[in-house]
Amino acid sequence: MASAEGQAQATSAAEFQRPRMIRFSDCDPAGIVFYPQYFVMLNGLVEDWVSEGLGIDYHALISERRIGLPTVRLEADFRAVSRMGDHVSLGLAVERLGSRSMTLVLRCFEPDSGELRMQVKQVIVTTSLESHRAVEIPHDMRAAILSSGMAPRA
Amino acid sequence: MASAEGQAQATSAAEFQRPRMIRFSDCDPAGIVFYPQYFVMLNGLVEDWVSEGLGIDYHALISERRIGLPTVRLEADFRAVSRMGDHVSLGLAVERLGSRSMTLVLRCFEPDSGELRMQVKQVIVTTSLESHRAVEIPHDMRAAILSSGMAPRA
Amino acid sequence: MASAEGQAQATSAAEFQRPRMIRFSDCDPAGIVFYPQYFVMLNGLVEDWVSEGLGIDYHALISERRIGLPTVRLEADFRAVSRMGDHVSLGLAVERLGSRSMTLVLRCFEPDSGELRMQVKQVIVTTSLESHRAVEIPHDMRAAILSSGMAPRA
Amino acid sequence: MASAEGQAQATSAAEFQRPRMIRFSDCDPAGIVFYPQYFVMLNGLVEDWVSEGLGIDYHALISERRIGLPTVRLEADFRAVSRMGDHVSLGLAVERLGSRSMTLVLRCFEPDSGELRMQVKQVIVTTSLESHRAVEIPHDMRAAILSSGMAPRA
Repeated sequence: MASAEGQAQATSAAEFQRPRMIRFSDCDPAGIVFYPQYFVMLNGLVEDWVSEGLGIDYHALISERRIGLPTVRLEADFRAVSRMGDHVSLGLAVERLGSRSMTLVLRCFEPDSGELRMQVKQVIVTTSLESHRAVEIPHDMRAAILSSGMAPRA
Repeated sequence: MASAEGQAQATSAAEFQRPRMIRFSDCDPAGIVFYPQYFVMLNGLVEDWVSEGLGIDYHALISERRIGLPTVRLEADFRAVSRMGDHVSLGLAVERLGSRSMTLVLRCFEPDSGELRMQVKQVIVTTSLESHRAVEIPHDMRAAILSSGMAPRA
Repeated sequence: MASAEGQAQATSAAEFQRPRMIRFSDCDPAGIVFYPQYFVMLNGLVEDWVSEGLGIDYHALISERRIGLPTVRLEADFRAVSRMGDHVSLGLAVERLGSRSMTLVLRCFEPDSGELRMQVKQVIVTTSLESHRAVEIPHDMRAAILSSGMAPRA
Repeated sequence: MASAEGQAQATSAAEFQRPRMIRFSDCDPAGIVFYPQYFVMLNGLVEDWVSEGLGIDYHALISERRIGLPTVRLEADFRAVSRMGDHVSLGLAVERLGSRSMTLVLRCFEPDSGELRMQVKQVIVTTSLESHRAVEIPHDMRAAILSSGMAPRA
């Protein structure tokens, strides 16, 4: 994973970040985040990135434009536990921008120390929600990613 | 429910409120909030109320002081659907403050029109997490509720 | 709740039941069922009742016939905790069959002792998923409820 | 992923399997499984494997023996969507058995056609729930895995 981590470092200047508190409902009987819940949190981060970072209405994208953003592959590393009440930061960087897919590096870290709690490298595809087949990344989304300075240089 | 609603109105001056966006992960295949998810959201509101409204560390309450706040009874009315992307407000008022329990009125509403989406009247009990038996509401919590002006007059 | 409980007893001969194990993912940091998760479990019971008890394809009802079964009101009592690993029974009885709505009594209990863990009286409405407005209970569903012997006598 | 898939094929004779119906509550506004929910389902499969496949009380392992089974790394591929009402099979194979960790290959597939819906290669570690540090895989668990015929040959 050395290269993926290097990449995450390299793109951190252009990382979209949001704070998040770890809630009671995120945690399991061991008192720590139930790991599938990290993916729920990070799905919310993608939602915020599209809406606030790119300025594209995520909910209209899905319910009106009928474009989905399913995950086709992910690699996740869990490094340290997060406990109920922790104030963490969630970050998103674009590692690769393809024609019908993109690779995101998403991570959860402790904002003061920078301690990495977990990190995911995730390939998402733009699909038609009618056919569930891949379609081109919509022009406005691609343009917004390019103009955000978050896209990696070719 | 006329009396419960009247009560909710009456206590609205002392309502603890937080904004919440309805997320993709809150919604079901009908595109609207999956109703159990309202209870997850409102559990988060109780968490914020205890921590921020009352100034009591909710997570330490549970993990260190071993005091739980389980629900023993609730009555919920669902009036209007909430859709993905909706920006709603969540509100909490104290209807009754007993010795080992309290009754909260929790609601989700549209902040501009005031349209009520759902409302719950919920009895929560303070318990020992060792025995799962009711214990007195901790002194600091009772004092904070009384000094917050949110407790109903006797 | 005396009448609701009496009703639950009275209709127990015609109760649709399914076993369920309490899973790690159902439980909170207190090691007991996180209460919103009871509603997720009971939503699954309604799903099984419609599909297996009534013989009506629940998923086609929603995705093809575009009929939803939202909850408009519920009253829940939580009597005893359920812990991870517990083997419980879930039960469903029809308390009232209206023209566009019905009242269900749903409960979770310990199968050997009969100990009640929680019980919900829940009003569900049949709606059009296009308009989210109430529609008549579909004929096949009404007929199946009547022929199942689960409908209360008028 | 060619080797991981080959491995999954190779170990399929010793795959622990359970049927699962895709529920309403598993699905998102696109009408398909919300991907974090696959991890919830597969966490349930690990629970069943430990309890039923290995004959070790999973819940006592956590709540009494205070041994956790957190995931430290996973790689997941999502190949085809699962829809509400689908009857799928979940499968678990042991790819590697270390001293304090093991690698599992978990998958969701359509039982008749064998169509793969998603697959995860997941490294889980046995930890002390007091310190959240890795500990040796308990003897009874190791012995049960070895005697189950599911452990890969050295």
